[in-house]
Order: sequence, then C-alpha cells, then structure tokens
Amino acid sequence: MQLTDDDIAGKLKALPGWQKFGAEIRKTFELKDFAAAMGFVTSVALLSEKGNHHPDIDIRWNKVTLVLSTHSEGGLTDKDFALATKIEALQ
Amino acid sequence: MQLTDDDIAGKLKALPGWQKFGAEIRKTFELKDFAAAMGFVTSVALLSEKGNHHPDIDIRWNKVTLVLSTHSEGGLTDKDFALATKIEALQ
Repeated sequence: MQLTDDDIAGKLKALPGWQKFGAEIRKTFELKDFAAAMGFVTSVALLSEKGNHHPDIDIRWNKVTLVLSTHSEGGLTDKDFALATKIEALQ
Repeated sequence: MQLTDDDIAGKLKALPGWQKFGAEIRKTFELKDFAAAMGFVTSVALLSEKGNHHPDIDIRWNKVTLVLSTHSEGGLTDKDFALATKIEALQ
C-alpha cells in the first residue's frame, strides 16, 4: 500500500541522508575506496535478495547511490523504508 | 594517451554491444536475475581492482550497465579497451 506524503515525511526523519525524489527515496554513501564500496554493495545485495526487494544501485568508485521504490505499487511503501532501515544498520 | 576516433571505431568492432558516447564507452548486460547480475558485477569488480581501472556500474535488478573512460586522460585510452575485452571474456 502506498504511503501518504505525511507518512513518508515522518519516516524520513529516522533515516538521515535519505531524500525523496518523486516516487523514490535515495541516498549516496561515500566509502573509503572502491573495495569498501563493493563490500557495502554486497551487504546491500544480500539484504535485498533476502527480502526480495531490490534497490537501484549506482557505483562510482567509492560512492554508492541507492534508490528505493516499490514499482509494483507505483510508489513508496513500507518495504522501501524497511530496507532503508536495514541498510542504515549496516554502517 | 587518448585514442583517435579511428582507433576507437576499429577497437569497437571487436567488442559487440559496446557503444561510444562522448568520451566513454558503455554496454548494458542482461543477466538471468539479480543474483546473476551481482555475480557478474563482482567479477567485473575484481578485474577492475586488479587493473586499478574502475568502470561506473549501474545495477537495475538483472541489468548491469558498465561505463568506461580514462578520467585522468580526459578520454578513451587503451586501458578502457583492455578492461572491456577482459569483461567480454567473462561471459
């Protein structure tokens, strides 16, 4: 079920650095170097596969941008915020 | 050393699916699913780290777009085509 704008604004308060762009939330993480970025991406990939909910992932050497949306619902849902919360717990 | 347009056109003939966009070459690979995409990305990452030349990598579930350029030279060099050739050999 799509979240309302109020729900989304409330949930984003608990997720520093995550921002809403249209029907997505995104954050860019800066790691030490490419190897560290790949380690982070691998952890995100394992979380994603376990929950069957996958972010778009852009890797630029030490920078990783993650974009979350629930395409099947056409917007943001609890699945996106649950995954973002798990990703934050990796750090 | 930057390659000339003629050099680039010649080298691209040996790299099916790779296309030049400005100072970059890129290709999108379609894998079976997200797990297969991550396996491919990991192989590309290991090649990149070994050669200290890293593509931009965009992951969209089963699709992986790789973008190569030699930023320190401001264009395309042999390093880009050497890595693209190694990536093709993974398939």
